[in-house]
Amino acid sequence: MQLLASYLAGSWSNGSGAKVPLVNPTTEEVIAEVANGGHDLAAAFRFAREAGWYELGQMTFAQRGALCGALAKAVSAAREELITLAIANAGNTRSDAKFDIDGAAVTLSHYAELGAKLGDAKLLGDGEPLQVGRTARMGGQHVWTRRHGVAVHINAFNFPAWGLGEKLACALVAGMPVIAKPATATALVAHRLAQLFEPLLPKGVLQVLIGPAGPLLDEVRANDVVAFTGGSATAAMLRSKVSARLNIEADSLNAAVLGPDVELASETGGLFVADVARDITQKTGQKCTAIRRVLVPAGRFDEVCAALKDRIAGIAVGDPSRDDVRMGPLATAQQLADVRAGIARLAAATDSVYGGTGEIAPVGVPAGKGYFVGPVLRSTSDPMGCAELHSHEVFGPVATVAPYEGDAAFAADFVARGEGCLVSSAYSDDRDWVAGFVTSAAPWAGRLYLGSAKMAAQSPGPGTVLPSLVHGGPGRAGGGEELGGERGLRFYMQRCALEGDASVLKSLTQS
Amino acid sequence: MQLLASYLAGSWSNGSGAKVPLVNPTTEEVIAEVANGGHDLAAAFRFAREAGWYELGQMTFAQRGALCGALAKAVSAAREELITLAIANAGNTRSDAKFDIDGAAVTLSHYAELGAKLGDAKLLGDGEPLQVGRTARMGGQHVWTRRHGVAVHINAFNFPAWGLGEKLACALVAGMPVIAKPATATALVAHRLAQLFEPLLPKGVLQVLIGPAGPLLDEVRANDVVAFTGGSATAAMLRSKVSARLNIEADSLNAAVLGPDVELASETGGLFVADVARDITQKTGQKCTAIRRVLVPAGRFDEVCAALKDRIAGIAVGDPSRDDVRMGPLATAQQLADVRAGIARLAAATDSVYGGTGEIAPVGVPAGKGYFVGPVLRSTSDPMGCAELHSHEVFGPVATVAPYEGDAAFAADFVARGEGCLVSSAYSDDRDWVAGFVTSAAPWAGRLYLGSAKMAAQSPGPGTVLPSLVHGGPGRAGGGEELGGERGLRFYMQRCALEGDASVLKSLTQS
Repeated sequence: MQLLASYLAGSWSNGSGAKVPLVNPTTEEVIAEVANGGHDLAAAFRFAREAGWYELGQMTFAQRGALCGALAKAVSAAREELITLAIANAGNTRSDAKFDIDGAAVTLSHYAELGAKLGDAKLLGDGEPLQVGRTARMGGQHVWTRRHGVAVHINAFNFPAWGLGEKLACALVAGMPVIAKPATATALVAHRLAQLFEPLLPKGVLQVLIGPAGPLLDEVRANDVVAFTGGSATAAMLRSKVSARLNIEADSLNAAVLGPDVELASETGGLFVADVARDITQKTGQKCTAIRRVLVPAGRFDEVCAALKDRIAGIAVGDPSRDDVRMGPLATAQQLADVRAGIARLAAATDSVYGGTGEIAPVGVPAGKGYFVGPVLRSTSDPMGCAELHSHEVFGPVATVAPYEGDAAFAADFVARGEGCLVSSAYSDDRDWVAGFVTSAAPWAGRLYLGSAKMAAQSPGPGTVLPSLVHGGPGRAGGGEELGGERGLRFYMQRCALEGDASVLKSLTQS
Repeated sequence: MQLLASYLAGSWSNGSGAKVPLVNPTTEEVIAEVANGGHDLAAAFRFAREAGWYELGQMTFAQRGALCGALAKAVSAAREELITLAIANAGNTRSDAKFDIDGAAVTLSHYAELGAKLGDAKLLGDGEPLQVGRTARMGGQHVWTRRHGVAVHINAFNFPAWGLGEKLACALVAGMPVIAKPATATALVAHRLAQLFEPLLPKGVLQVLIGPAGPLLDEVRANDVVAFTGGSATAAMLRSKVSARLNIEADSLNAAVLGPDVELASETGGLFVADVARDITQKTGQKCTAIRRVLVPAGRFDEVCAALKDRIAGIAVGDPSRDDVRMGPLATAQQLADVRAGIARLAAATDSVYGGTGEIAPVGVPAGKGYFVGPVLRSTSDPMGCAELHSHEVFGPVATVAPYEGDAAFAADFVARGEGCLVSSAYSDDRDWVAGFVTSAAPWAGRLYLGSAKMAAQSPGPGTVLPSLVHGGPGRAGGGEELGGERGLRFYMQRCALEGDASVLKSLTQS
């Protein structure tokens, strides 16, 4: 049995004590193990604070960007191997695996370009020079400088490659050394990436703890940062335990709204149906950005349900290594239990459109094995009154459709009922309706995707996180923010207001 | 006895239950009372969420800026009355009181101008339009929108006017309704401001709780924000209790460093001595930005100590209502106890330069009355080894001087030993030295003040917070950020990435 080592303090550490199994969620076979602990985490933090901090301090933004470029190339070069690992360990179809792995490469490449653009500066100017005295001689200039500490990254099970890559890219270019802790259950991909990345990075810049977190947070000091992606229970624990700067991406009940102007047969209508169907089934619904709540004009309710039913009914569920299968299992037994419980709660408050409560006979899987649930479409006639629809994220292939009268303000209120989303979307070619929706919905979402005929042909859909746009959301979604080009570096930097002789400030920011 | 009412849910509420006395710290006489509780805080939050949210939503940035302008005028018009209240309730000298009250007016005026500049937009663009698809048609645009919730402001005792005004200005222009809770001990000034502001603001926009917080935080929801200024113990409680967005300004051991090139008789040397002496005595050292740690070249150590001693020895301490008195008492009995304990700790680890442990016979005060401590200057020969110097903020008229060899990196390490400052300062006319210092010290301070000959004549000193520069600091200082012009609005806003047809995005941000 393969034992996955952690890369800490400059060497590979097997850890000690009890072993935690990694499972193939299609067959339930154990495919690897990790130690439950036994690593010297204090030494890892020291190594980051000393070696990692020093090494990154010797490099310009451009040089740190070049590191990201090398990592992106390494991901792409190992693509087929990583896809195989993702199919085996995460239940990904080949397409799901590519979404994760290519996403990591694209994001690392984006930050390679950004680093090159920022050039060989050491301080990053923020805004224009200010006059803060009687004359122009007394000036102010805000600058960004890397935080003097360690970036701790705690990632979710659903994106082992992208999650590692996107957080790492921002921290690296900003100049903070990283200790990453991938989710244990799907760590095979992250572990392989750690092996691939190790020879490409200066010492101490990236350390990867494979396995349970153990006392990881005990080492965090006030000037460190912790970026977390995962569930709200862990998020609440982190908030109470961590006094360092904290970025949280947690639960999100993303909504999709069909505008009253849209014929389903139109380009915009087709985009809407395709986006909702994709978000139900892609990665078996295990995307933090997936559409969970669907609001459609009452007059098109039946038509939309029929169209979605038609789409998802054609999707074969089963062994994700097979070419004819388009949806694999959930990633873990725990996820299966959680999703089943979530569907049961939802089923008690809604009607079935398709898939009942997710019972399925998967294709090509030993009888009784695997963490499978079929795609589920539910409906309610009471978009605002159905509390279950807005209060609990079912992290699987499940969405619920509800009708409305077409009012933009009502649609925005529907988005708001989720108490904070990573993303929500509206599909309309009526600009006034879109403007009304955006103004009221924007406080409740980190991203608003506006589907229309003009962009339908080249849209990535609302579920795709782009490195140039911020990712995160208010309220229930955790209140954090990642990516967004240069914005993504800020979490790893300290803004400092310089105050003094204007010519001195000018020379400082130009060096 | 005057009972200070709170302004909540559109009316003045006396509260009920036990009374908390407000004291004149010079004479220890009770001068007013507040109720310990008994207010309907749930109704206050509802009023903010409904009336306050609605009213601000009807207004543009420019109109909300105009509200700040009206408040600034009201502060200035009541200046003499407010100064009298500050002398009586906070132990401020006239000059100290002006520093607080004029600071409030200046900051409100700054945000009035900013609102006017932002004009009549409803969404604030953030960065340039981005191409996120194959062609320019598929675009991205980040925008800022006001958060849909309530801003809770918890202020410190030392700046009852400025603290209320600076937080309020940012929230108002951003568009969030405010519930402010001034510190109880010095609430006389804040209470009078609440009376003055009430007729100038639409209903629900500002509510002021005078007295203990009680169950205030129980009403906070995920999309609200809490901005806190105060001690680290309360900050830790807030971190564990509040899951909403939180801004904290807590303890800070601000440092001042004299560069090795500076003759004390020079303009830069004179500025340094004046700034350190002012920060020891202004507001009896009760400024979160005050210099606590002073690092000087070993060869100038004796000269600096003599110069500072000379300055502070000439300062009369006593009844702050007297024209000949330049330093009043500490604000409360608790502050006196804390400062005495802090001086005792410091005294055990340092040597006395002036003032011993702060024993003083104040001028014009009844014998044995008042919360007085004299200015205290301590010294240590071990700048890095003296742990007490870097680990505990003594919030009174106390500073400690230490020698060094003049190395810029050492000076930055000295700043860093405080584990995060609101501000630190360096005095030098050697640009290379300054550049070396700034690069290493910037991660540890929210602001770096660079004193030099060219700006000496018009410098406000490091202790003055300017509305155009950010105020806050990393690590021990709380990790927060306020003010900084438009930056100060961000805390009250949600950044949202809009994604869609580029021409639609353009029309949205231009409306």
